[in-house]
Amino acid sequence: MDIEVRKRILKFWNKHQFSLLLFFFHVCFIILIAIFGRYPNYQLTSNDNSSFSTTYPMFADVNAMIFVGFGFLMTFLKRYGYSAVSINMLLATFSILWSIIIRGFLSEEFSNHGHFILDTTSLVYANFSAAVVLISMGALLGILSPTQYVIMALCEIPVAMILEHVVAELFLVSDIGGSLVIHIMGCFFGLGVAKIIDKKVFHQSEHEGSVYHSDLFSIIGTIFLWIYWPSFNGALADGDYGKERSISNTFLSLVAATITTFITSNLVNSNKQFNMIHVANSTIAGGVAIGNVANVVTNPWVSIVIGSIAGFISVLGYEYLTPLLSKRGGLHDTCGVINLHGFPGILSGLCGILFAFIYTKDYYSNDEYYFIYPATRNGRTSSKQALYQFIGLVITLFGSLIGGILTAIVLRIPIWNRVPDDELFSDGEYFHTPDDYEFTTKLSSNAKNLKIQNFNVENV
Amino acid sequence: MDIEVRKRILKFWNKHQFSLLLFFFHVCFIILIAIFGRYPNYQLTSNDNSSFSTTYPMFADVNAMIFVGFGFLMTFLKRYGYSAVSINMLLATFSILWSIIIRGFLSEEFSNHGHFILDTTSLVYANFSAAVVLISMGALLGILSPTQYVIMALCEIPVAMILEHVVAELFLVSDIGGSLVIHIMGCFFGLGVAKIIDKKVFHQSEHEGSVYHSDLFSIIGTIFLWIYWPSFNGALADGDYGKERSISNTFLSLVAATITTFITSNLVNSNKQFNMIHVANSTIAGGVAIGNVANVVTNPWVSIVIGSIAGFISVLGYEYLTPLLSKRGGLHDTCGVINLHGFPGILSGLCGILFAFIYTKDYYSNDEYYFIYPATRNGRTSSKQALYQFIGLVITLFGSLIGGILTAIVLRIPIWNRVPDDELFSDGEYFHTPDDYEFTTKLSSNAKNLKIQNFNVENV
Amino acid sequence: MDIEVRKRILKFWNKHQFSLLLFFFHVCFIILIAIFGRYPNYQLTSNDNSSFSTTYPMFADVNAMIFVGFGFLMTFLKRYGYSAVSINMLLATFSILWSIIIRGFLSEEFSNHGHFILDTTSLVYANFSAAVVLISMGALLGILSPTQYVIMALCEIPVAMILEHVVAELFLVSDIGGSLVIHIMGCFFGLGVAKIIDKKVFHQSEHEGSVYHSDLFSIIGTIFLWIYWPSFNGALADGDYGKERSISNTFLSLVAATITTFITSNLVNSNKQFNMIHVANSTIAGGVAIGNVANVVTNPWVSIVIGSIAGFISVLGYEYLTPLLSKRGGLHDTCGVINLHGFPGILSGLCGILFAFIYTKDYYSNDEYYFIYPATRNGRTSSKQALYQFIGLVITLFGSLIGGILTAIVLRIPIWNRVPDDELFSDGEYFHTPDDYEFTTKLSSNAKNLKIQNFNVENV
Repeated sequence: MDIEVRKRILKFWNKHQFSLLLFFFHVCFIILIAIFGRYPNYQLTSNDNSSFSTTYPMFADVNAMIFVGFGFLMTFLKRYGYSAVSINMLLATFSILWSIIIRGFLSEEFSNHGHFILDTTSLVYANFSAAVVLISMGALLGILSPTQYVIMALCEIPVAMILEHVVAELFLVSDIGGSLVIHIMGCFFGLGVAKIIDKKVFHQSEHEGSVYHSDLFSIIGTIFLWIYWPSFNGALADGDYGKERSISNTFLSLVAATITTFITSNLVNSNKQFNMIHVANSTIAGGVAIGNVANVVTNPWVSIVIGSIAGFISVLGYEYLTPLLSKRGGLHDTCGVINLHGFPGILSGLCGILFAFIYTKDYYSNDEYYFIYPATRNGRTSSKQALYQFIGLVITLFGSLIGGILTAIVLRIPIWNRVPDDELFSDGEYFHTPDDYEFTTKLSSNAKNLKIQNFNVENV
Repeated sequence: MDIEVRKRILKFWNKHQFSLLLFFFHVCFIILIAIFGRYPNYQLTSNDNSSFSTTYPMFADVNAMIFVGFGFLMTFLKRYGYSAVSINMLLATFSILWSIIIRGFLSEEFSNHGHFILDTTSLVYANFSAAVVLISMGALLGILSPTQYVIMALCEIPVAMILEHVVAELFLVSDIGGSLVIHIMGCFFGLGVAKIIDKKVFHQSEHEGSVYHSDLFSIIGTIFLWIYWPSFNGALADGDYGKERSISNTFLSLVAATITTFITSNLVNSNKQFNMIHVANSTIAGGVAIGNVANVVTNPWVSIVIGSIAGFISVLGYEYLTPLLSKRGGLHDTCGVINLHGFPGILSGLCGILFAFIYTKDYYSNDEYYFIYPATRNGRTSSKQALYQFIGLVITLFGSLIGGILTAIVLRIPIWNRVPDDELFSDGEYFHTPDDYEFTTKLSSNAKNLKIQNFNVENV
Repeated sequence: MDIEVRKRILKFWNKHQFSLLLFFFHVCFIILIAIFGRYPNYQLTSNDNSSFSTTYPMFADVNAMIFVGFGFLMTFLKRYGYSAVSINMLLATFSILWSIIIRGFLSEEFSNHGHFILDTTSLVYANFSAAVVLISMGALLGILSPTQYVIMALCEIPVAMILEHVVAELFLVSDIGGSLVIHIMGCFFGLGVAKIIDKKVFHQSEHEGSVYHSDLFSIIGTIFLWIYWPSFNGALADGDYGKERSISNTFLSLVAATITTFITSNLVNSNKQFNMIHVANSTIAGGVAIGNVANVVTNPWVSIVIGSIAGFISVLGYEYLTPLLSKRGGLHDTCGVINLHGFPGILSGLCGILFAFIYTKDYYSNDEYYFIYPATRNGRTSSKQALYQFIGLVITLFGSLIGGILTAIVLRIPIWNRVPDDELFSDGEYFHTPDDYEFTTKLSSNAKNLKIQNFNVENV
């Protein structure tokens, strides 16, 4: 090929790759859903669907978590607010369609009838899969280009779907709130990517940091995750009592995590000042930590203890581990997802192993126990279930890590747009910004030396 | 009358017209509701109301859309945040009471028994009517005085109620999400007003524009509209399966619109930068576009296609049409409602016509078909239904436009307070503002020339 | 004891008192809940819980009110945003656990079986108790240290629980939305504290005040309180119709309060400018004022009148009373809770007395009347019920005031950390703040004299 032509193609590709790729994927999604996607058959069912009235409000809550919660939680960076909330929408919607398709292909309905069904429960699952990708996005916040984020989601969803299928469907591991298949999956996938693509400049950018109002935007996200987390962990629980218990356990765990976050944040700071990073993140670690066992626990105090541990280890992680990983480990984790999703997720997995032993059939009405651990219906023992919980934890942890590492290799192929070093953690490259963008976000870096009184007198 | 007395009366009127008028209207509302408004008769009914448990959560979602969604979506203007969110509350509440009365007078209950009934469904309808007025407010954002906004709502609600009555009750046109009677109605009424009251200065104000944080406030509104739009389109659907399908279709349409918004926003920008105006508005065009047919569509891919088209045309509208209308058409549409509600609403109406042909009785369990198209129960054919859908579209479009034009003539009567030219798109005239208001909102306009380093050195 | 040792202990105590105390309380909570707290016995009940599907969505709404609503409503202070939203989380979660325990000890289940039950309804109650403490926090916003806030909550919850028990359980006073036991309780307890701890410097701080964007954050809180208040007043109502009527009454009252807030805010201002303090607070006074009678009123217009009065008196209070109390009364009420919760709460209590006379058994299906006024089942007459409503109002008012005064004496013990005078209404002492904190929050105070044009020219 002529060099000139190659250059022009390359320039065209560099300029238009985002819209070309996304358009191509979107068309593929439409075709696949057109061929294989179905609504439930309304002619065969009555007009009354008893699960709808309890499931839909929970779906709406989960929807709020994905778009408000994750979106605003990530606006804490002073120069990356537009990207945080927008790319969050983009990746969530992309992952929703893509996961509907992949999960559909893995469904029993598909293997029996050659199509898959879309109902309210499917949409809850699709939002759960969006969460996986958004957690990974948190680890890589400010570091990837929009194209790279999309490619990451493209690779991640199949990994997450297969791991979910293996863990939940084949091994019948209990994981009602997705601590394994959502939080550990999203976190370690993201960290796998982050480790491989790491560059020194990621750790030195002056653009990484918050301003006063960006932290307030961020806490909007925190609180919406907090208030609706009970719905996240309860949406798929069996029956009203199963849902109620999942909700109560999650709520109590969040309450406890919030209290220990304040205790620990105060404890670790030499000036006895609370840190908004802890308030914004560790308070919701309780939702992750109870996730795997939200429908299992039948004693309220147990949830409170789990939440308390989650808040404690999460703050310690933010305070000591994240800086260490950045400095020594060559691992940049922008939102500290290892402290919010990673360790609390592992804690939850460990509880899941332990509690499979402890909470035997006697703790529940019979039917409920069989729903929580479906394999026990066919004779799997408590200790065998515990073993499977352990296997599930290990598979998700390593599977996601390997998936992330492989994806990072794809992301490093030099055909994708990359964020220029001086635009890391910044909107400027990919978003049209208003006139005050530079002032509002750069002044802040230098503002601490500014004496307002002088400034005023001189300028009036 | 003595000139001096006239002057004093005029001065008094100019000063107090807002509170006098609003007080007068409010007292009238109370009297009318006292005479004609009733709750359902609890003595005649059991304590159990099966629709309540599904309808109320959806009402709460719609409530969030009206007050959080519309309110914050309009805070994008850098100097008009107080007004946007406050006048939004004022117009919404005013329209709620006023529409309860007018819709009540048009109800069957009223013509049979001389009173009207207020239940949860009535409150959903009242919130829908608030949406109509808030859409028109969007077209005129920053241009009318509080008095003028109230007068506009006063005129608009009867127009909207009569059109709704004609279209939905007399012609039995299907419009579950109100694409015709809410979105087209609100949009073209607002544009009708905007065209007539247009002044050159509207197109030249330096106050029109956003700052970094005002865009982030705005996107709060976007996302709350996004997440709860399924409830908006599903709240009045018949039965659990009707609601579920309306919800799924709306969700998929929003997802698709979001993806195509990012594709198109990238495509049309020469620097390959996303535009927050598109992200904030076109992503939710999918909710409008599926509105008319949310309960009709029985294939998921169809909703995805509709949403995709909506996001695409909405971005194109913002990019090319709105500037053109402003420059050449003498039409200032502050929020670009023509691109968010207008064209997607028309698209939805066209789908409604087409689908009345396509989706015949065979696609539904019998009862549901008759609920979607009630006239078919009495023998109306598919093609006749399609004709009525067409008539409904035309009536709403022209009816709202004419209503807007007539209302504009009322608004131009020189007895109402008007926004001074230099306070267009600004809070200063009608809201008490804090000390930093001028600095925060004016600095921004000049901030792009500011070099922070110099500034710092000189002032410390 | 050696003076040196005493000094070191004192220093240690001053430094670590917050985390030590909170850790101690938290461990006590866990132990008490471990011994006495139970979930409902799932073995004895079917898997179907009809109240769950209606109660849980309302619980979620109340949850949003507590954490988003109260949290953001209090972010209006320009330098106290971190504290407002964070301390709100801390006090809410602390109060939730503590109230679960105390209310548990006062429950019938506990006196019969020696343990208390935790279900979704308990969690609604726990959130209600959080509201009590957060209202008091509003009166004292910016004035107490974190330690003092926690001590306040520690003292307040038992007072509130005992008053609630006496009023609702022993005297069988009707108070569905908690106007007495939540709003009056929280308000006058807070004012009792404020009166006793008052210092001249509270009234003179230049840090008290808002900036443009802090007011916008604050209105997020307002609107979430507004939209979900119907759930707050309806969550505990009996049956679907009782819930529906509570919801409709609350919604109409809020609508009316919003309209009269705008009328009155305009009326009292000499420049005819609306005041954001009124918009942010008085618009929701309608929710308080209908609280006591939300399930009682059976005529929609009555709710509208109650809401209208509430908005009116609330604005008058903010405009005239709060400055007077501060200037002459030696009472600093940062959020003006007397105008949002105090007077509207008393208004609601008075309506409760009056309506116990007016709305007799004939207005309801029999069962519902007996639920609203349980004592009438055992022969209590309407007028006697009215007397009890009066007694309930008086007890709550004076009980909370006395409780607040006694608590203030505890708070004045010189062993607790106190806010330094120059850090009143400021985050700086207790929160790690970003670089722009001083600039963003101090510039504003001087910004009104700043001419941007000059500033620009000189610095480029």
